[in-house]
Amino acid sequence: MLITFEGIDGSGKSTQIALLKESLVESGKKVKVFREPGGTGISELIRGMLLNPEIKIDPVTELLLFSSARSQLIAEKIKPLLEQNAVVILDRFYDSTTAYQGYGRKSIPLDQVHQINEVASHGLEPDITFYLRLSLEESAKRTIHMQKDRMEQAGIEFFERVIQGFDTLAEQKKRFVVIDGSDTTEKVHQQIVDKLKGF
Amino acid sequence: MLITFEGIDGSGKSTQIALLKESLVESGKKVKVFREPGGTGISELIRGMLLNPEIKIDPVTELLLFSSARSQLIAEKIKPLLEQNAVVILDRFYDSTTAYQGYGRKSIPLDQVHQINEVASHGLEPDITFYLRLSLEESAKRTIHMQKDRMEQAGIEFFERVIQGFDTLAEQKKRFVVIDGSDTTEKVHQQIVDKLKGF
Repeated sequence: MLITFEGIDGSGKSTQIALLKESLVESGKKVKVFREPGGTGISELIRGMLLNPEIKIDPVTELLLFSSARSQLIAEKIKPLLEQNAVVILDRFYDSTTAYQGYGRKSIPLDQVHQINEVASHGLEPDITFYLRLSLEESAKRTIHMQKDRMEQAGIEFFERVIQGFDTLAEQKKRFVVIDGSDTTEKVHQQIVDKLKGF
Repeated sequence: MLITFEGIDGSGKSTQIALLKESLVESGKKVKVFREPGGTGISELIRGMLLNPEIKIDPVTELLLFSSARSQLIAEKIKPLLEQNAVVILDRFYDSTTAYQGYGRKSIPLDQVHQINEVASHGLEPDITFYLRLSLEESAKRTIHMQKDRMEQAGIEFFERVIQGFDTLAEQKKRFVVIDGSDTTEKVHQQIVDKLKGF
């Protein structure tokens, strides 16, 4: 089973993933968590390039680098784990690419982003996607102490388009479960657990 | 003007590019040569990953990494140079991706390779492509002294499919000029210069 978490920074993805992992492990499941981009030797090298604020990267190159890191993670780690019936939880997946590189950057046509996503994901689709929805104001409050990496320096209008992108995906994709990220940690966790009981 | 050179290793691309550059510079042109993958900071980092025989890379990742390097080279170097009316000569371009990652690796459908090529090249197409055709036997003779990098360790059947890929592209694309790579250096150079006079 492949579970993905999406949402802007500060939406609580890492916290919720840790809590979910704990409760799944307690119930006897084999669980593995990855954050994108990263998770393999090559993917971590690519992560270093993508998040370095000193490096100027063209938007198309950025899309292709995120996709390269994803492809390697899927081929080397995720597919073998799913074959062993493990539960794989991803902190971001290709919906982030659609939201950030497609809707956010705007310079690449969405159909091209979708084509690249399809190739890079080796045909893999999440079984369920938890979208922790948060307003830009709330995200800014929660992340004010963080040092900004290259992606995070992109400006308010960029992030407004990213949120709009996630919202649009949530309307289009049945696998999306939208959860109010401004709820308490406990309440969000409970909603996730309840939803997963249906599976 | 964008001129690309294609062909398997040992076909004489580097030698012919050096000679062509010399004659174009002599006639007063601004000429810039790049080899793929490479030519920018990011692209050279990617080149290092791709050619390292120690690193195992999934075929889809490989395709996307070559494409990332290409995208950055085009955005950062080639497009600005073409706008200044320079002549840009490329030692390999996306036809190599089609031949090696598409025909050679076989694991990725050709239409997906073409889609990625289109995105990664920012819509840029060569004005003319010199394909220095060489048999596998001749290539083996000429490269016997070279240390093999990761791409070059792929085996005879792989390279036979690569040649078949180049041959197919040569039939399909009007911009392809096929030249017998086993001819003398002088003779090959003369054919290239003659062909370019038509432009």
